Amino acid sequence: MIKIGIVGATGYTGAELLRLLVSHPNAEVIAVTSRQEAGRPVADIFPNLRGHLDLQFTAPADESFDGADLVFFATPNGTAMQSTGALLERGIKVIDLAADFRLKDIPTWEQWYDQKHADPELVSEAVYGLPELHRSNIAKARLIACPGCYPTAVQLGFAPLLEAKAVDTHNLIADAKSGVSGAGRGASVGNLYSECADSFKAYAVAGHRHLPEIKQGMQLITGNEPGLVFVPHLTPMIRGIHATLYARLTDASLDVQKLFEDRYADEAFVDVMSPGQQPDTRSVRGANVCRISVTQAPGSDWVVVSSVIDNLVKGAAGQALQNMNLLFDLPESTGLSHAGMLP
Amino acid sequence: MIKIGIVGATGYTGAELLRLLVSHPNAEVIAVTSRQEAGRPVADIFPNLRGHLDLQFTAPADESFDGADLVFFATPNGTAMQSTGALLERGIKVIDLAADFRLKDIPTWEQWYDQKHADPELVSEAVYGLPELHRSNIAKARLIACPGCYPTAVQLGFAPLLEAKAVDTHNLIADAKSGVSGAGRGASVGNLYSECADSFKAYAVAGHRHLPEIKQGMQLITGNEPGLVFVPHLTPMIRGIHATLYARLTDASLDVQKLFEDRYADEAFVDVMSPGQQPDTRSVRGANVCRISVTQAPGSDWVVVSSVIDNLVKGAAGQALQNMNLLFDLPESTGLSHAGMLP
Amino acid sequence: MIKIGIVGATGYTGAELLRLLVSHPNAEVIAVTSRQEAGRPVADIFPNLRGHLDLQFTAPADESFDGADLVFFATPNGTAMQSTGALLERGIKVIDLAADFRLKDIPTWEQWYDQKHADPELVSEAVYGLPELHRSNIAKARLIACPGCYPTAVQLGFAPLLEAKAVDTHNLIADAKSGVSGAGRGASVGNLYSECADSFKAYAVAGHRHLPEIKQGMQLITGNEPGLVFVPHLTPMIRGIHATLYARLTDASLDVQKLFEDRYADEAFVDVMSPGQQPDTRSVRGANVCRISVTQAPGSDWVVVSSVIDNLVKGAAGQALQNMNLLFDLPESTGLSHAGMLP
Amino acid sequence: MIKIGIVGATGYTGAELLRLLVSHPNAEVIAVTSRQEAGRPVADIFPNLRGHLDLQFTAPADESFDGADLVFFATPNGTAMQSTGALLERGIKVIDLAADFRLKDIPTWEQWYDQKHADPELVSEAVYGLPELHRSNIAKARLIACPGCYPTAVQLGFAPLLEAKAVDTHNLIADAKSGVSGAGRGASVGNLYSECADSFKAYAVAGHRHLPEIKQGMQLITGNEPGLVFVPHLTPMIRGIHATLYARLTDASLDVQKLFEDRYADEAFVDVMSPGQQPDTRSVRGANVCRISVTQAPGSDWVVVSSVIDNLVKGAAGQALQNMNLLFDLPESTGLSHAGMLP
Repeated sequence: MIKIGIVGATGYTGAELLRLLVSHPNAEVIAVTSRQEAGRPVADIFPNLRGHLDLQFTAPADESFDGADLVFFATPNGTAMQSTGALLERGIKVIDLAADFRLKDIPTWEQWYDQKHADPELVSEAVYGLPELHRSNIAKARLIACPGCYPTAVQLGFAPLLEAKAVDTHNLIADAKSGVSGAGRGASVGNLYSECADSFKAYAVAGHRHLPEIKQGMQLITGNEPGLVFVPHLTPMIRGIHATLYARLTDASLDVQKLFEDRYADEAFVDVMSPGQQPDTRSVRGANVCRISVTQAPGSDWVVVSSVIDNLVKGAAGQALQNMNLLFDLPESTGLSHAGMLP
Repeated sequence: MIKIGIVGATGYTGAELLRLLVSHPNAEVIAVTSRQEAGRPVADIFPNLRGHLDLQFTAPADESFDGADLVFFATPNGTAMQSTGALLERGIKVIDLAADFRLKDIPTWEQWYDQKHADPELVSEAVYGLPELHRSNIAKARLIACPGCYPTAVQLGFAPLLEAKAVDTHNLIADAKSGVSGAGRGASVGNLYSECADSFKAYAVAGHRHLPEIKQGMQLITGNEPGLVFVPHLTPMIRGIHATLYARLTDASLDVQKLFEDRYADEAFVDVMSPGQQPDTRSVRGANVCRISVTQAPGSDWVVVSSVIDNLVKGAAGQALQNMNLLFDLPESTGLSHAGMLP
Repeated sequence: MIKIGIVGATGYTGAELLRLLVSHPNAEVIAVTSRQEAGRPVADIFPNLRGHLDLQFTAPADESFDGADLVFFATPNGTAMQSTGALLERGIKVIDLAADFRLKDIPTWEQWYDQKHADPELVSEAVYGLPELHRSNIAKARLIACPGCYPTAVQLGFAPLLEAKAVDTHNLIADAKSGVSGAGRGASVGNLYSECADSFKAYAVAGHRHLPEIKQGMQLITGNEPGLVFVPHLTPMIRGIHATLYARLTDASLDVQKLFEDRYADEAFVDVMSPGQQPDTRSVRGANVCRISVTQAPGSDWVVVSSVIDNLVKGAAGQALQNMNLLFDLPESTGLSHAGMLP
Repeated sequence: MIKIGIVGATGYTGAELLRLLVSHPNAEVIAVTSRQEAGRPVADIFPNLRGHLDLQFTAPADESFDGADLVFFATPNGTAMQSTGALLERGIKVIDLAADFRLKDIPTWEQWYDQKHADPELVSEAVYGLPELHRSNIAKARLIACPGCYPTAVQLGFAPLLEAKAVDTHNLIADAKSGVSGAGRGASVGNLYSECADSFKAYAVAGHRHLPEIKQGMQLITGNEPGLVFVPHLTPMIRGIHATLYARLTDASLDVQKLFEDRYADEAFVDVMSPGQQPDTRSVRGANVCRISVTQAPGSDWVVVSSVIDNLVKGAAGQALQNMNLLFDLPESTGLSHAGMLP
């Protein structure tokens, strides 16, 4: 049994971590912290966990995570970097679901996250936890920076094209649509039901924090900074990201279907659909799957990739467990092999 | 391994059966029939099953279910009664998720379902599959009639009060709200997204098929036909039933909280919330749970029960598997112990 | 032209007032205040008003409403009572969309709204603005207390039965369902999209502020305090209330259809449907209509009334304008005669 | 009063036409046909019209539209072309909301709509009813082909860039998202609530009927066939289209904000937002408005246009009335000047 602590599990990624962990055969949650809810049963906040988790939130200041093998941070950006170093020194591994250790370039991080980084050295050590691209490094790591939700969908969708040097990397477009849970569980007018339901909009068109993260990941593949236009949108659903990706083929006769199928043939959590099929986000609802289709636009050298994930699972908590499985030498799909919930 | 056949798995209860069965450790689906989709991979219709189920639909006429231990019918009303007898004779157990064997009184059935019953004798044999009320009979049965979704929520909500003879049985009210998946996956204008979204309505106020089923179940407890007003409503969500039940206490000083907690103390799938809490349907989304609260209206002898289920799980496919576990002497919660999906 | 000021138009009832007023042929909005948004164009907050309203929010402290004939308060409870008296003294009429002047009994108000009332004398003067019940008093008033959304739907649904002394007033049940906009535009976790979507729940079962308001209105009809169980629910839609009302007929042979049709024959904004029809909330979306059906439960002396409104229109801003039309001797449906938006 | 007939008003564009027409001061609906609903009151199908329209559907075969000045076709593709000629000969003007007269190239039409065209000559006469681009021709026409919903949003979004020759016309991308009402009111599994809610998907990636229509419109501006990738998506909302348009500026220093503001300065129904603002579809819900923002992607020569409409209003019925106003020499915004419904 892996003994697990969670910092900050009152948000949606924390809730999803707990939902997945209570069914994981090799993991046991021993402590869950929350500044605001200390002393309250976790299942009072998330009643779906009634009967599954008999723990109360503890205050972060009081919680030392004694006996833990692993601590997950499901906290706002800027929290994990404060205490990760101390945990690692005590031999406790850390998986951060926030952005603290994602960007290798500290000035870039500080610009986008609008604060001074508390532990730049750990940033160099941290491994970017996208297993399909960085599996071998993950297995050896102490500290994992889990990718953002958009970056997961976008990188997995572009990767086969970039690895094969098949597209013009100066003109890439990622038109991404997210469900509202991606905006978190904090009280805000913009995320109220009556503001988001039955409506659709773009946001952060002039720049989104996930843009430098995606570009960094792409550059690791191609060696050069890509030209990427990234436009996120908010769509009235709870979970799910649909990234529609556009790229110009350098060779319009390339068999893109075969390229994708070959690339992901051995990946348990990436599913390439058959020609003519398009993935819907509900097909991955609750499941740790990235489902992809690829289509060449008719009479054109543009290729269109649809890449869907559940932002809380493959885009956050599920991917975190996938990383945990790798860290602790378990089969990668342990506790993650259930089907999506449809309808 | 229990070898399983499914008749008619192109609807939502069939889809949910498959989703749950592919994770069940003691069950193996060997055949799935569909008149319309014969020859097509099941995962083409339900892409959440891609990678989980490698079967094609077979035509009902061609499918003998050789080797099956159990056949589920997830068919429209009036189908299971045609071929259940033959399956039972071959030693194959049957669980019907439709209404063919629910009502003991044949004329009542024929009136509400507007057809002649094809096998009245089997009706007498069939056991009504609500384990919390009829567990011992279920374990010994060959043929299970799975309860309807509304009847599950309503009976579990009223049962403690009726068993304790605590309420006036002449004036019971069940105001029930269902998500749209309860109406099935058949093409119909009334269930289109643009007809159901962002709207709420009552329907079948003058009479609903589930009314005689609920009354029959109540009469089994009280010995008399109850006076019940049952008003179903359609609410814009995919899954979930919320039944708000009203009854007048014969003794207004009764501790109804204790009554409910005691009644369901040993039930794995009925969760009585603490005083002051109210269940939301999402807390049981995807889970085989009936979550209940009970409140005495202030300054009144009326008691209000909120009873929520996922209509496709505890109201259909999950309850069917719970019955299967009982039939095959497995622990009742085998394959059914995951938490609800929230958010 | 009626010159109009609005206090606190950053919530949904204020937004809806503005939407309706910009199309009203006899009204002109001259000032809109907001503490938080002072100086900002109103259409920046509500972009549907771009091109329709060229005003900036002013700070309440700076706004004297000079030249106004009428001021609407679309503020939180407890605000209007602070400054209504001063406005009335200056000859400006006031319509309060909040609860400050709804309850005649001050201790009851202070208990439910948890504060001391600032102007009890004005409470006696205020007229309860439900035109279908109190039209003649409204026309002569200086100060109107607009009814709550639930009380509008519930009172209009019960009124014909109570006026006719046709039901047992000791056992009335109102099972009401509201869209999320009823909870307002304040930032709160409970009203986030990801908390409310695809889920249904009851709330305030042990007591809701609208209960004493409804009872007061009923008592005005019957002369006695009624026995009413009121259970509100939250349903995943933006607008709309569906109240399902249950009452026992004292004479089971009463023609309830005729009773309702006769009662509302001359009302422009109450529509009684034909036997067998049920209203859906979308049929009144955006419209100042209460649509009603009445059904006797089969084989029972219980009668079931479905009463639907748009909580922001007939339940708030539309009703406020209906009152304004009466106050200023305009035809009652001026600016309110558009059809509901379906789908 | 313009006397109006409507053919086929049981779909959503027909319903919306009726909703708008009952408030139009210069129009009177004299006949509404439906094959399936002949004899039934229109308000039985669309109860929002109760009290607004006292007409029954008539059978198409029995309806001669005597006395009509104008007939709208709100029918499936391929219907209007059968009888438009006869109506025109009788001096009755025709506005077709379907696609029969949109494409000038008959073979292209026959390929995409998979049928033989019944009246190619009328196609040459028909005027494409996008007033912002073809106003002068519309005013003189007998027969108007109303644009499709996607083509309206996409053409209005690209037009300023194309007219100014400001972008590379070989690499245009239109990533469009539509609410479900765009798919019509026909019974179909794919448009059921339980299939569409809480999910998002692309469709028709390999080719959509609106692609040739958009290209034809663009070519009218530029003189050459554009290179356009068009990917439509289905998003879980009732109404609304959000088109996100991508184009490469030929001169990256162009002031695109000014370009758009100047182009649409005199248009009543196109609203260009301020820099930094993004339109949400709800801001145009129910309103005849196309709301646009334009943003240059940071550090890039790509420009991103967000163009939103209500698919049933500016994308169908509202635009049809705008055309009617032009045809009958009324002020263009007569009956179309209400604000969008938010929330």
